[in-house]
Amino acid sequence: MPRARWQRQGKHGTERPAQANHREIIVTSSAARPLAVIILAAGQGTRMKSSLHKVLHPVAGRPMLLHLLASAAQLSPQRQVVVVGAGRDQVERAVEGTGAVIAVQEQQLGTGHAVAQAHDALAGFAGDVLILYGDVPLVRADTMRAMLDRLNRGDEPRAVVLGFRPDDAAAYGRIIADGQGIIEKMVEYKDADDPERAVTLCNSGLMAVRSTDLFVLLDAIGNNNAAGEYYLPDIVMLPGGQSAVIETDAWEVAGVNSRAELAGVEALWQARRRADAMRDGVTLVAPDTVFFSHDTQLGRDVVVQPNVVFGPGVTVADNVTIHAFSHLEGASVDSGAEIGPYARLRPGAQIGAKAKVGNFVEIKKATLGEGAKANHLSYIGDASVGAGANIGAGTITCNYDGYFKYRTDIGAGAFIGSNSALVAPVSIGAGAIVAAGSVVTRPVEPDSLCLVRPEQVGKTGWAARFRERMQARKPHK
Amino acid sequence: MPRARWQRQGKHGTERPAQANHREIIVTSSAARPLAVIILAAGQGTRMKSSLHKVLHPVAGRPMLLHLLASAAQLSPQRQVVVVGAGRDQVERAVEGTGAVIAVQEQQLGTGHAVAQAHDALAGFAGDVLILYGDVPLVRADTMRAMLDRLNRGDEPRAVVLGFRPDDAAAYGRIIADGQGIIEKMVEYKDADDPERAVTLCNSGLMAVRSTDLFVLLDAIGNNNAAGEYYLPDIVMLPGGQSAVIETDAWEVAGVNSRAELAGVEALWQARRRADAMRDGVTLVAPDTVFFSHDTQLGRDVVVQPNVVFGPGVTVADNVTIHAFSHLEGASVDSGAEIGPYARLRPGAQIGAKAKVGNFVEIKKATLGEGAKANHLSYIGDASVGAGANIGAGTITCNYDGYFKYRTDIGAGAFIGSNSALVAPVSIGAGAIVAAGSVVTRPVEPDSLCLVRPEQVGKTGWAARFRERMQARKPHK
Amino acid sequence: MPRARWQRQGKHGTERPAQANHREIIVTSSAARPLAVIILAAGQGTRMKSSLHKVLHPVAGRPMLLHLLASAAQLSPQRQVVVVGAGRDQVERAVEGTGAVIAVQEQQLGTGHAVAQAHDALAGFAGDVLILYGDVPLVRADTMRAMLDRLNRGDEPRAVVLGFRPDDAAAYGRIIADGQGIIEKMVEYKDADDPERAVTLCNSGLMAVRSTDLFVLLDAIGNNNAAGEYYLPDIVMLPGGQSAVIETDAWEVAGVNSRAELAGVEALWQARRRADAMRDGVTLVAPDTVFFSHDTQLGRDVVVQPNVVFGPGVTVADNVTIHAFSHLEGASVDSGAEIGPYARLRPGAQIGAKAKVGNFVEIKKATLGEGAKANHLSYIGDASVGAGANIGAGTITCNYDGYFKYRTDIGAGAFIGSNSALVAPVSIGAGAIVAAGSVVTRPVEPDSLCLVRPEQVGKTGWAARFRERMQARKPHK
Repeated sequence: MPRARWQRQGKHGTERPAQANHREIIVTSSAARPLAVIILAAGQGTRMKSSLHKVLHPVAGRPMLLHLLASAAQLSPQRQVVVVGAGRDQVERAVEGTGAVIAVQEQQLGTGHAVAQAHDALAGFAGDVLILYGDVPLVRADTMRAMLDRLNRGDEPRAVVLGFRPDDAAAYGRIIADGQGIIEKMVEYKDADDPERAVTLCNSGLMAVRSTDLFVLLDAIGNNNAAGEYYLPDIVMLPGGQSAVIETDAWEVAGVNSRAELAGVEALWQARRRADAMRDGVTLVAPDTVFFSHDTQLGRDVVVQPNVVFGPGVTVADNVTIHAFSHLEGASVDSGAEIGPYARLRPGAQIGAKAKVGNFVEIKKATLGEGAKANHLSYIGDASVGAGANIGAGTITCNYDGYFKYRTDIGAGAFIGSNSALVAPVSIGAGAIVAAGSVVTRPVEPDSLCLVRPEQVGKTGWAARFRERMQARKPHK
Repeated sequence: MPRARWQRQGKHGTERPAQANHREIIVTSSAARPLAVIILAAGQGTRMKSSLHKVLHPVAGRPMLLHLLASAAQLSPQRQVVVVGAGRDQVERAVEGTGAVIAVQEQQLGTGHAVAQAHDALAGFAGDVLILYGDVPLVRADTMRAMLDRLNRGDEPRAVVLGFRPDDAAAYGRIIADGQGIIEKMVEYKDADDPERAVTLCNSGLMAVRSTDLFVLLDAIGNNNAAGEYYLPDIVMLPGGQSAVIETDAWEVAGVNSRAELAGVEALWQARRRADAMRDGVTLVAPDTVFFSHDTQLGRDVVVQPNVVFGPGVTVADNVTIHAFSHLEGASVDSGAEIGPYARLRPGAQIGAKAKVGNFVEIKKATLGEGAKANHLSYIGDASVGAGANIGAGTITCNYDGYFKYRTDIGAGAFIGSNSALVAPVSIGAGAIVAAGSVVTRPVEPDSLCLVRPEQVGKTGWAARFRERMQARKPHK
Repeated sequence: MPRARWQRQGKHGTERPAQANHREIIVTSSAARPLAVIILAAGQGTRMKSSLHKVLHPVAGRPMLLHLLASAAQLSPQRQVVVVGAGRDQVERAVEGTGAVIAVQEQQLGTGHAVAQAHDALAGFAGDVLILYGDVPLVRADTMRAMLDRLNRGDEPRAVVLGFRPDDAAAYGRIIADGQGIIEKMVEYKDADDPERAVTLCNSGLMAVRSTDLFVLLDAIGNNNAAGEYYLPDIVMLPGGQSAVIETDAWEVAGVNSRAELAGVEALWQARRRADAMRDGVTLVAPDTVFFSHDTQLGRDVVVQPNVVFGPGVTVADNVTIHAFSHLEGASVDSGAEIGPYARLRPGAQIGAKAKVGNFVEIKKATLGEGAKANHLSYIGDASVGAGANIGAGTITCNYDGYFKYRTDIGAGAFIGSNSALVAPVSIGAGAIVAAGSVVTRPVEPDSLCLVRPEQVGKTGWAARFRERMQARKPHK
């Protein structure tokens, strides 16, 4: 493979790193070896039919690419390079703050060529290189670590390939390996003969290689194939060294080329997360109807009824029950609280111990004190509700004037009558009572009654007369 | 089969159509041949345990029978005849406006007899006849077309049978055919010997026959069997001609004899529809939790979160996100809008570009202009909401007086304070502000403030005294 | 097995019952034989990671243990004994009122030892004994009866074991039996040789034995095994008698040792219940999304749309449609009513014939008369609503003052304007109209109009000036 192809495109110059003596380095613990991660994300993703870059499509509420970066981060890599083709800007914005850098593959000339584009971003780096795929998001840190450990074991393979055994090996490339996992042959399905096709061990494409070997090997591979592309797996069979395979479960290397596969990977992720939750002491009455985010945290003896959705950023303490049709996002719930059904917790909701948020209640950027209750048809936003306070049905905090948001402070033990509107900024003192249907615009003293209510007028017989008039006008059906 | 049986029951006289010379007709394109469709719907449907006629049970929000009529309509049939036994009135109402006519089978004497009841309804018709079943609703127009194409191919089979290969062939009738699909034998499972039972090709019952042959053949079959019934498939093995089979996927000919099978067919339909949506560039985070109607239309890069139900008549443009627990019906949503969670769009809801409909908000027969927002606990019915208007939490359009419905018109950029009631007919001018908690009964000028609010009264210490009184009365637990 | 072990712990003395002559008794119908049920519930349930006793985890809204007691109750047992280790208090409270008594197993010395702890509770009892497991909750009364019938058949086996054939026999103990179901050998998987492991009939652990035999047999078994425990199944192979096996479906004996298995048993229960509902004439558009409770009752031609949750205590009459996202609990619904979507019926809700409860409406301890409607965003609690009354959107019954609950009575044909607050105790006469936005605190006469509304004030140009001020303050983005 002509070196020029990646030397041209780097922005950090063309120097090759000094050949580190990895034979010495591996004497120390593998954990101590420097690590660089290359994530290939240059595929067009045409089958996604999306204007969003494929690797940014979310799984469990987080872009696939960030799943990989988060898993890789557990191995404390020194460098992380994302190789992008089209859609560079979207990806660049997405990785902001992660420490990953972007390398651009202008032309799609194969996976080998794509990896080569990371050359300049790895200038000066000596250590192990892990090659991942932006559309294969479920790979665990443990598996990455196992690949590196294998790379640095005594027999020092040149490359470690991650293999898997799918239910249906179909058209995957096959790996023929000996009992020690030393690869004898890697063969594309279309080039495989019948005995080779009968092999069930397949190539995921993920690989670990030493930085000192990687670009030398890439230089050596050709593009003498139908597509005229440089294939990364070809480095395995190059003469002058041997490579090893380690195996992982098929689900872990599931890839995403279409929305259906995206849904498939989401389902795999959710199934594992649900199993973890149950193993840790959470009851899921109907596991298949509960949807977690990548960072959901649930305590012990939490009970989750059917049809609950967790958006990102939710922490739930022990002994909380979450009833059906609840939707939590960016919220914390203290122990013994009761949520839902039909509770909508939005970012910044902090529900105190033994508090209750009931039917058709939305809480946003608001704290509910211990034992406070908002049980029906309320909107509590930009507010603090004191311990033991009772928010009547249909209460609305009017927190917005079209330009700014304002706060409502409700004291401990206050009682807000139903159908009240609390026009922020406003405070309701501890122990105060707001009469039903009040529109509260001025502070309410502690322990006082607030009443905002016109006289009730009755017009005898009016309704009967109205009905007569209306029935006369009513069109016949 | 005694001709009298169908001659008795027709209402259009008993003349038989002149024997058309189909050999000449098929020289022209098969598309040009006249088509008649007979849908058998005379089964009792006892296992449904329903007072609704079996073929009127809906799949994807549309009666099964209408699925078939809609699919058949793609082939522009000249006539469509639904053969009904009990429940004729229900079926007649359901097909109103479709152009289909009803033929009645008074006695249940078998499928052959049922088809014969369409005789009079086909008086004067010469062309191809397609025989479908009202409880086999998923057959595609393409498959119907393939049956007709086969009927009119060079070897001119007398009948074309639709075969399928189920996972478990069980007790289906078997079709023994040669390599060209010419049927050598059709045999009921109970009459089949072991080699015949080993055949996996089964008979769906669907058939295409020329009108000139159909009733002649029906005349020739007997009812010499245990049930004393005339079986339509018997026409295949009559001497003097040969029939052909074409194959389709088993799901397409799934039949409905019970509510469980109805649910099964619904699931098959939904699974296909979900796959289609994803293929066309829609993200379904959890496909199994999204329910489509027969006519749902979704643009590209629409994201559908878990637990969303589409009733009939929904159109969603590109780049719309529909959050969890939303229920849309008869609504249109423009590009970039955000719907839900817990949004309820009812018929006549038209949501403008980049508008937002949020938690526990119901919209009915109302337009939301571009960028308008109704984010919390509101009911907007019979209304127009201008671009950029903001509907505060808990806003209600009071559109009904028990007799008539009235309209609310809200101008562009208006701000409706929370917990307001807009008593229709009423208009809020562009740029006007309605203070929180207002009951608006008269027009509000553009750019004005509308305030409907009594004085706020405070009674110092009242709540403390109330508490004392109440605690004294409170029953001990 | 040393008798002392159970003699020590009983509280009813140590007398053994007189040996009843069961050979005479079985001449009469088996139904006439006295029955005692022993439910073993002494397992630690460590894998549940719960502070709730394992057998009290609910399935279909009812603790597992109570499922068993309810099924056993159909056989009218004279005694029911629950053998508990840790968590005795929780279990004791749970079985209150069922007639079951608690026996305590202080040390976990195996299932044989556990059964022995029931000795004293069965003092004076002579008849059949059925041994069940608190974490195997789905066993049907019919199966229990079949075990007893087999026990009392002519060949009089000493014990009847319930066998099953799981999809994967895995590590279950195997039962080798002859063609008559007489057990030749029962063997733990780990002790089985290959031919024995090839046997697919497995031991569920459930057993029926005569009370006159049970404790004698238990006395005879040893604890000469790795765990040093007394195993109940060992009584089968004791010399001097023969035992029989009857088979049941594997689902019925599914056990719960973890939350995942709890979810599995819940899923089995729900799948059966859904099939039953459909068989009985209920349409479940998407069966997998409907969750029943143990006592849900649905009439014919009830249609349940996707995503509906039934809590305990729900009865629904014929021809009711329950729309998506509804949650019913402790409620009754009369025929022809329409519920939801997003309807929340709580205990004490009684919905009359042809009444409607719509979007985001919560009903608690309230009756809706025939044809009454509460269609949008309302809370109706502690109330009666007369026939044909119309509850406007956003209506709230203010039923609570922080101490007591009060009733709201709404007469037939009354019309409650939207966004009204009805401050209980209060009554609205028949045919009365309450104007929108009213806070009603005093009784409203029949046929009168009630109006509680301040003057509407307009401030021309105010909104325009406000916008200017605010835009000036608005932070630049």
